[in-house]
Amino acid sequence: MDSQWTLSNPVFRTWALSSSILAVKLLLMALFTARHRIAKKVFANAEDARIANGKVKTDEDVERVRRAHLNDLENIPAYWIISLIFVLTEPAAFTAKVCFYGFTAARVLHTFFYLNSVMPFRGISFIIGQILNAFMAIRCVIFFI
Amino acid sequence: MDSQWTLSNPVFRTWALSSSILAVKLLLMALFTARHRIAKKVFANAEDARIANGKVKTDEDVERVRRAHLNDLENIPAYWIISLIFVLTEPAAFTAKVCFYGFTAARVLHTFFYLNSVMPFRGISFIIGQILNAFMAIRCVIFFI
Amino acid sequence: MDSQWTLSNPVFRTWALSSSILAVKLLLMALFTARHRIAKKVFANAEDARIANGKVKTDEDVERVRRAHLNDLENIPAYWIISLIFVLTEPAAFTAKVCFYGFTAARVLHTFFYLNSVMPFRGISFIIGQILNAFMAIRCVIFFI
Repeated sequence: MDSQWTLSNPVFRTWALSSSILAVKLLLMALFTARHRIAKKVFANAEDARIANGKVKTDEDVERVRRAHLNDLENIPAYWIISLIFVLTEPAAFTAKVCFYGFTAARVLHTFFYLNSVMPFRGISFIIGQILNAFMAIRCVIFFI
Repeated sequence: MDSQWTLSNPVFRTWALSSSILAVKLLLMALFTARHRIAKKVFANAEDARIANGKVKTDEDVERVRRAHLNDLENIPAYWIISLIFVLTEPAAFTAKVCFYGFTAARVLHTFFYLNSVMPFRGISFIIGQILNAFMAIRCVIFFI
Repeated sequence: MDSQWTLSNPVFRTWALSSSILAVKLLLMALFTARHRIAKKVFANAEDARIANGKVKTDEDVERVRRAHLNDLENIPAYWIISLIFVLTEPAAFTAKVCFYGFTAARVLHTFFYLNSVMPFRGISFIIGQILNAFMAIRCVIFFI
């Protein structure tokens, strides 16, 4: 057996759980955007504004959620793949847990800090996520080169 | 054998087919944007405008395609991973088909309705995709927790 | 054994290496954006501007990096999945290398040309990436249909 992508591998199960949690988190961002759009009656499309009796306009609260969402899109799909490849490098269970749950926690906190305009904690949680992704990605490049 | 990610698993094959179709669909969005940019001669970069004898400007038709494209980026990569993890939970073949082909159809229709400004059908197809992703993601979290 | 996703499959290893390199490349884009924001003191959030004694403003250099970054987000996650599925179709090792390293090189060059405003080479590298992704995606659809 030369694959690590099996349910009998605890590191792989940790990957699956952290990735699923991040998927739920990412899906929630669309709801946050929708909630702000409906509350403020500001929309991106004329046909939406017409239905909701609102207008086509950019709004700082909506844009803030959208920036947090876009930041997730820049980081979470990269995490999903790089951590999956990282499983192949047979990391110690502890290392994998630190990377996987650490990244997940960093991204959840990043959004919390972003939506509440809390600096420098938003920056710190972003950097922790970046460092964990970079650590795994570089280890994968070295492993497979 | 404790992996479900094998060609002998029909649910996995369904995942592979639906994911491939969604990749083709996503690649087409860049062509739609390019077509509108060239037809209207509106570009995002000065060097592109110079070559095409157009100008740097935002244009509502181009922005509409870009919003549809961005909406895909918010949903399709999440689908690719969450449905792949969902395969590990050994769903019934029928459940998997409803989720996988349902999501694929919802995203194709979403783009069709977006580009033609058809509400509320665009909203409905978006929500169907979200519900299917959320259903799978939550089942995965429960399975692996 | 009916899976191709094993370390004993050289095509799979090529996938893992090219995907890891692209992850490193994608992570660097956030640093490029941050560097420009800090150098020019232009930010997207009021709280960031306050800390850095700068202002909330859009800046063409920052926007250029962000467009290159967004272009990556439109292409690299699609590559990660479609090339992973492509491995299942048992491509010849040479075909896989051309597709995987070709795409990786095309994306690195794309960013280089984008940040230096070099047309038509940015366009050519974009199209090469698109063609490789489309070739793999269509082969996957045909294989699994």
